[in-house]
Amino acid sequence: MSTGRIEAFSDGVFAIVVTLLVLEIHVPHVQGPNVSAALAHGLAAMVPKFLSYVLSFAIICIWWIAHHHLFHLLKKSDRGLLWLNCVFLMCLAFIPFPTALMGDYPGERIAVVLYGVVMTLAGTAFSAMRYYAFYSSSLMDTDIEPGLLNAAMRKSLAGPILHLLAIGFAFVDTRFTIALYVIVPMLFIVPSRLERYTNHPR
Amino acid sequence: MSTGRIEAFSDGVFAIVVTLLVLEIHVPHVQGPNVSAALAHGLAAMVPKFLSYVLSFAIICIWWIAHHHLFHLLKKSDRGLLWLNCVFLMCLAFIPFPTALMGDYPGERIAVVLYGVVMTLAGTAFSAMRYYAFYSSSLMDTDIEPGLLNAAMRKSLAGPILHLLAIGFAFVDTRFTIALYVIVPMLFIVPSRLERYTNHPR
Amino acid sequence: MSTGRIEAFSDGVFAIVVTLLVLEIHVPHVQGPNVSAALAHGLAAMVPKFLSYVLSFAIICIWWIAHHHLFHLLKKSDRGLLWLNCVFLMCLAFIPFPTALMGDYPGERIAVVLYGVVMTLAGTAFSAMRYYAFYSSSLMDTDIEPGLLNAAMRKSLAGPILHLLAIGFAFVDTRFTIALYVIVPMLFIVPSRLERYTNHPR
Amino acid sequence: MSTGRIEAFSDGVFAIVVTLLVLEIHVPHVQGPNVSAALAHGLAAMVPKFLSYVLSFAIICIWWIAHHHLFHLLKKSDRGLLWLNCVFLMCLAFIPFPTALMGDYPGERIAVVLYGVVMTLAGTAFSAMRYYAFYSSSLMDTDIEPGLLNAAMRKSLAGPILHLLAIGFAFVDTRFTIALYVIVPMLFIVPSRLERYTNHPR
Repeated sequence: MSTGRIEAFSDGVFAIVVTLLVLEIHVPHVQGPNVSAALAHGLAAMVPKFLSYVLSFAIICIWWIAHHHLFHLLKKSDRGLLWLNCVFLMCLAFIPFPTALMGDYPGERIAVVLYGVVMTLAGTAFSAMRYYAFYSSSLMDTDIEPGLLNAAMRKSLAGPILHLLAIGFAFVDTRFTIALYVIVPMLFIVPSRLERYTNHPR
Repeated sequence: MSTGRIEAFSDGVFAIVVTLLVLEIHVPHVQGPNVSAALAHGLAAMVPKFLSYVLSFAIICIWWIAHHHLFHLLKKSDRGLLWLNCVFLMCLAFIPFPTALMGDYPGERIAVVLYGVVMTLAGTAFSAMRYYAFYSSSLMDTDIEPGLLNAAMRKSLAGPILHLLAIGFAFVDTRFTIALYVIVPMLFIVPSRLERYTNHPR
Repeated sequence: MSTGRIEAFSDGVFAIVVTLLVLEIHVPHVQGPNVSAALAHGLAAMVPKFLSYVLSFAIICIWWIAHHHLFHLLKKSDRGLLWLNCVFLMCLAFIPFPTALMGDYPGERIAVVLYGVVMTLAGTAFSAMRYYAFYSSSLMDTDIEPGLLNAAMRKSLAGPILHLLAIGFAFVDTRFTIALYVIVPMLFIVPSRLERYTNHPR
Repeated sequence: MSTGRIEAFSDGVFAIVVTLLVLEIHVPHVQGPNVSAALAHGLAAMVPKFLSYVLSFAIICIWWIAHHHLFHLLKKSDRGLLWLNCVFLMCLAFIPFPTALMGDYPGERIAVVLYGVVMTLAGTAFSAMRYYAFYSSSLMDTDIEPGLLNAAMRKSLAGPILHLLAIGFAFVDTRFTIALYVIVPMLFIVPSRLERYTNHPR
C-alpha cells in the first residue's frame, strides 16, 4: 500500500481543520443606543478568541510539517499505520471545539484543561504513529542511524508530556498553563536532528 | 473514463465530512453566579455528543478505506458508477446532521432511528455501487475468483442489514440500538478475504 | 497555462460546497413536557430542508460532471477562462444560502425566486465559460465538428433559460416553479451528443 | 524540499476559505402576521453582506492567482518560505470573520477598519513571502532580469500600502474606505510585467 492516498486524505483534513477554526469566531450581536461603543467593547472581549485561534493554527501547522516529514521517511504503509493515522486525525479534527471553548472561557480551569487534554491526546496519537513507523513495522524507507530515530522519538514524546505537565499547572494557576501552551510549540519550530539529517526539513 | 477524478472528488468529500462533524459541537453558553460549575455541568451533558462524534468519525474512516479498495479494483469508470457514487456521497455528506441529532437527544427513539436510517441508506448505496462494479459492468481491473467477489458482496450487504436490524431494536430499547451501532463497524475493521487477496488492504 | 491547477481548485470548491449544504440543517431545539412528540414534529417540519438539500446536491453534481467534460476538451487555459471560472465558482459557492432559505420558507415567493436567480446566474456564468472556450479563444484540444459544439452550447443555454422561465412561474404558483427546479436538472443527466462523441461521458 | 506539498496545502486552504464565506450569511428568521414582507425586508437588509461576500471572494481569487504565479517561479522551497506561507494562510483563513463583521455593520468604523487591518496583514505577509523568495534565498527557478522582480515587488507592496491608506480614510468617511477596498483589487486583475514575461499569467 503506497502512502500517497493517506497523505492526500490527511492533507485535506489538515487544510480543513485549520480553516474551520475561524467559524467558531462569531460576529458579536450588539444593540442599544450606542452601537459603536458596544461593538468596540464586544470585539475587545473577543481578544482571547483571536489568540486561541493563532495558537491552534500554529500548532496544527507544526503537526502538518511533522506529518509530512514522517511520511517522507516511509516507503510504504499498512493497516496499522492507517488506523493510527485515523486516530490522530480524529483528535486533530476535534481541535476547533477546545479552541473555541478556551477562547470563550479563558479564565475557566475546565476549559484550559480540556484544551490541553485534546492536545495531549493528539500528541500521543502522533507519537504512537511515529513509534509504530520507526520500530514496530518494516515501513521505513532508508537505513537511518538508530540514534537519530531515538532522538526524534524522544522529542516527539516531549510534546504530550509537556502538555500533561501544563495541565497539572492548571490546578495552581491557569495562566502558567496557557504560557506553557504557547512555549511548547516553539520547541518544535526548530527541526530535529533527524529532519536535518534526512534533508527533508518539513 | 479514468477513476482518478472520481476518487479525488470523493476523497475531498470524505475529508470534509469527517472534519465538519466537530462544527455541530457548540460551546455551551453558561451564565449565573457560578460559571465554573455551570460550565462543568454543561460539558458533562455533552458527553453523548462527543461519543457520537467518535462513532461517526470511525464509520466514515471505514467507508473511506472500503471506497479506496473498491476503486483500486477498477480499471475504468462510467456514468452508472459515477451516479451511484454521487448518491453514496449524498448520504455520506448528510451524516453530520443525524450525528448531531443523536448527540443532542441520545434517549429519543426518533433521533436514534434517523441515525440508523442514514447509515442504512449510505450502506445500501455503497453496496449498490459495489454490485454494479462487480457484476453489472466491465469495469473490473483483474480476473478475480468469483467466490471472493461474492464473499465481499455478502459482507458489504451485512452492513445495511445489521443497521436495519438495529433500527428494529429501537422499538424495544434504544440502548440495544446504540450498542449495535458501535459493534457493527468493528466487523469491518478486519479486512475481507478479497482485500487480503488483492494485497491492497485499504 | 495548463488546466490542472484550475481543475484542482474548482474540484476543491465543488467538494466543499456539496458538503457544506448539510451545515444549514440545524438540529431542532425542543422543550416542554413531551420532548418526543415535539422532536418528531420538528423533524417533520424540516422535510422541505431535506428535499432542498437533495436538489442542490444533485444540481452541483451535474455541474461538476459538466465542468470536467468542458476542461477535458481544452488543451490549455488563459486569464479570460480563469476569471470566468472564478465568477462561476462565486455563484456555485453561494448555493448553500438560497438552499437553506428555500428549505426554511418553501412557500414564500421571494425564497423560491432567489433560489432560481442564483441557479440562473451560475448557469449563465457556466454558459459564458463554455462560449469563451468554444468560440472566443484557441484553447480547444481537438478539431470537433462545429455542429456538435453548437448543439452543446444550445443545451448549455437551456439551463439558465429554463430556470428563468421557472422564476416567471413563481408569480403564478411557486409549486410550478419548484416542480421545474426538479425537472430541469434531469434533462442534464443524459449526456449531450458532444459528450458521447468525445467519449468522455462525464 | 519540493514546492508541490506547500502548493497543495495552500490550494486546499484557498478553496475552503472561499467556500466558507457563505456560511456567515444566515437565513433571516422572521415571524409575525406578514412573513412575506418581513422576509423581503430581512433579505434587503442583507445586501451589504452579499456585497462583502463578493468583495472577499474576488480578493481571495486574486491572491490565489498571485500565489500560483509566485510558486511557479520557484525551483524549490525551504523552512523560511514554509513558515512565511503559514503566516499568510493564517491571515487568509481569518478573512471570513471581518467579511461577516463588515457585512453586519457596514456603517461602523471599527468593522470597516478591522476588514482593512486583516487585508493589510495578509498583503504584508504575502509581500514578505515574495521578498524572501526574490532576494533572501536561492529558491528562484530562473535568471530573471532584476528590473522585473523589483517592479513586481513594488506592485506587491502597493496592496498593503493602499489598504493602510484606506484605513486612514475611515476616520474621515467609511464610504471612502469601502470604495478603496473595491478599487484596490482591480489594480491586481491586470497581470504584472513579470507575469507576462514569464508567460505564466496566473
